[in-house]
Amino acid sequence: MKTTEQLDRDDTLGFLRQLYDLPNDKCYLDGNSLGALSHSVKAAMEEVVNREWGESLIGGWNSHGWLELPLRVGDKLGALLGASAGETLCCDNLSINLFKALAAALELQAPRKKIITEATHFSTDNYIGEGLARLLGPDRCEVVAIPLNDLDTTDLHEAAVVSLAHVDFRTGACRDIAGITKRVHNAGALVLWDLAHSAGVIDPGLNANQVDMAVGCTYKFLNGGPGAPGFLYVAERHHQAMNPIPGWMGHADLFAFESSYRPATGIRRFLTGTQSVISMKAVHAALKDFDGVSIDALRAKSLALSDHFLSLLDHNPVTRDVTCLTPRNPSQRGSQISLRLPMGYPISQALIARGIIVDFREPDIVRFGFSPLYNSFAEVQSAVTTLADILRTECYRDARYQQRQTVT
Amino acid sequence: MKTTEQLDRDDTLGFLRQLYDLPNDKCYLDGNSLGALSHSVKAAMEEVVNREWGESLIGGWNSHGWLELPLRVGDKLGALLGASAGETLCCDNLSINLFKALAAALELQAPRKKIITEATHFSTDNYIGEGLARLLGPDRCEVVAIPLNDLDTTDLHEAAVVSLAHVDFRTGACRDIAGITKRVHNAGALVLWDLAHSAGVIDPGLNANQVDMAVGCTYKFLNGGPGAPGFLYVAERHHQAMNPIPGWMGHADLFAFESSYRPATGIRRFLTGTQSVISMKAVHAALKDFDGVSIDALRAKSLALSDHFLSLLDHNPVTRDVTCLTPRNPSQRGSQISLRLPMGYPISQALIARGIIVDFREPDIVRFGFSPLYNSFAEVQSAVTTLADILRTECYRDARYQQRQTVT
Repeated sequence: MKTTEQLDRDDTLGFLRQLYDLPNDKCYLDGNSLGALSHSVKAAMEEVVNREWGESLIGGWNSHGWLELPLRVGDKLGALLGASAGETLCCDNLSINLFKALAAALELQAPRKKIITEATHFSTDNYIGEGLARLLGPDRCEVVAIPLNDLDTTDLHEAAVVSLAHVDFRTGACRDIAGITKRVHNAGALVLWDLAHSAGVIDPGLNANQVDMAVGCTYKFLNGGPGAPGFLYVAERHHQAMNPIPGWMGHADLFAFESSYRPATGIRRFLTGTQSVISMKAVHAALKDFDGVSIDALRAKSLALSDHFLSLLDHNPVTRDVTCLTPRNPSQRGSQISLRLPMGYPISQALIARGIIVDFREPDIVRFGFSPLYNSFAEVQSAVTTLADILRTECYRDARYQQRQTVT
Repeated sequence: MKTTEQLDRDDTLGFLRQLYDLPNDKCYLDGNSLGALSHSVKAAMEEVVNREWGESLIGGWNSHGWLELPLRVGDKLGALLGASAGETLCCDNLSINLFKALAAALELQAPRKKIITEATHFSTDNYIGEGLARLLGPDRCEVVAIPLNDLDTTDLHEAAVVSLAHVDFRTGACRDIAGITKRVHNAGALVLWDLAHSAGVIDPGLNANQVDMAVGCTYKFLNGGPGAPGFLYVAERHHQAMNPIPGWMGHADLFAFESSYRPATGIRRFLTGTQSVISMKAVHAALKDFDGVSIDALRAKSLALSDHFLSLLDHNPVTRDVTCLTPRNPSQRGSQISLRLPMGYPISQALIARGIIVDFREPDIVRFGFSPLYNSFAEVQSAVTTLADILRTECYRDARYQQRQTVT
């Protein structure tokens, strides 16, 4: 086993860290929740606000290509996801995009009406399915939530679409996109993958795996900033589907102001209203930081980081019995490690107080996220050492770590 | 009639101009399309990106109150619209908010199913209605588009909701919110006002007029930046309605990640997904520039600016016969003057080339927008003088002014 120092010395992506403006006093292991700020995003924000908006004003829509940003940023994003140009939009947020995708899938698959979803899917994914079912009524939409383990034994021949997470937000488990997509297709259903926790660290191979639709956000491993826009991928073969929220930005002739909706060809029809230019530019700059870096190299480093974490955990007598919810098998592991700790909340607060920034998910999960763009093996070691120290000294029993905050 | 110099000297809001970072070489009369950048927005952008995100990272959701921004900014906005606290959200964009509002209105009004809308409404408003009708089917939704002049003679007793623009984007006509709302209510229908072209310059008196719902954007007279978020007002008495796109941000217990949707009480239930913190902060800062300024004073100055424009137009032999589409009656006038000019497109380009920033709308409309926050009477005079010169010399016949750009 290589030492931490050897791992950092041999890390061919280590130079990327300098692109980010991370506080020196923190070991930031929460890129799975909110990615870090890069110097290029900082510069882009000043450029778009002070120069583009401030100086060009309304002329910016032409001179700075603002109108094309959702498609241009979408394509840059699509390149990280194995999508072809013209299949990905950066727009709205994950929930809105999911609504559009599910409604489009139901239309394509009618009279099939079942949305099969994971019972423990990220909350908003299931709420959106529920909402659509409520809106369309039981004759046109029905949501069936099942444990993911039951997918193999569930008859999908009545399913319109199967809606799943690529990486589970609680456990960090990474699902077999290729195998599941094939199985779903064999039953004549479409598949919709939520890539929120994998985009930027794992190649979902959207085209190669013939994925039908996908959604995600850009504020996690893609570093687009707090609440940065979502994205929507629709395979080209499904571009005849209608956008259920057809706004002017998806019209075939935007500035003709025609009285009736006429959808644009291609992915553009899935646009609805005007997108925030400032937010789009932040994502665009954040994606530029990926230029010249292969997604496979990022995946390899991400797994090396979590391997190292698990290995240090196993070798430390204080931590070796901690329950790890994330699969040990690398192909089934996302870019985070989720530990089940009975005193999870105060432990997470004690870690944060010592500069190890992690997060907590109910009821007892502490998540350590690893960004291959800016995290080092030394940080991984620091996290395990600090966790062991906190568990050994039981300092998490201190009252100041018990008090809940809104978001963790 | 006061001279231009007298008007500027007596302008008690003239000092506000210094809040904005406007180019010196432009006379910016397009605040009805994209508002100007203020110094406080510039500062807020640096603060939220470099300080809040860059330094606090994930902790910003707690320490900087990011989660509450859609409600907090919404309330600040609501104060300009005559709404009570807790009735306005800043989120998504106008089209998405309109979809939510129309669907909620149909639910509240069932079995009524008719959406009555203006035939010449801003395009997206009608596309969204159409989309909802397509989604719900003819048994549950039907869109009837009528000329606004026919509203008085249309039987509204089968209407679920009447969807109208406060200020028409083409003509600049301002509609009688009080009278129309009352008439609609008398027929048992709800009213939904699109405030895109009035928010920040005219008080719609949402509560006083018992308006049911309203939507708008923040990138015009509110100066929130290109593509800045939309807003949604729902009168408190309608807060039991469901959000048709129910996402996690509108759940009663956001971080419990419950498997089923349970709507939050109040306006919060109309939230769907995560909002861009950077965009929210821009709007928040832009609204702070309204602090201490009464909306009535803004309206008075706005009308004084357009009065002066019309008066100069009438007194100039070159321009006095130009057709003005905007009503002369001040109470029926928004904060723009729309001129019908047969060579409208090249004339608008010639104006822009001389630093008078206006915009063009098909087929022959040149729009002059007046922001009472930063426009001066001298700018109004400059616009009319330049227009007269362009018409007199016919310099707009120059080939360089003919070529169309995507956005004008």
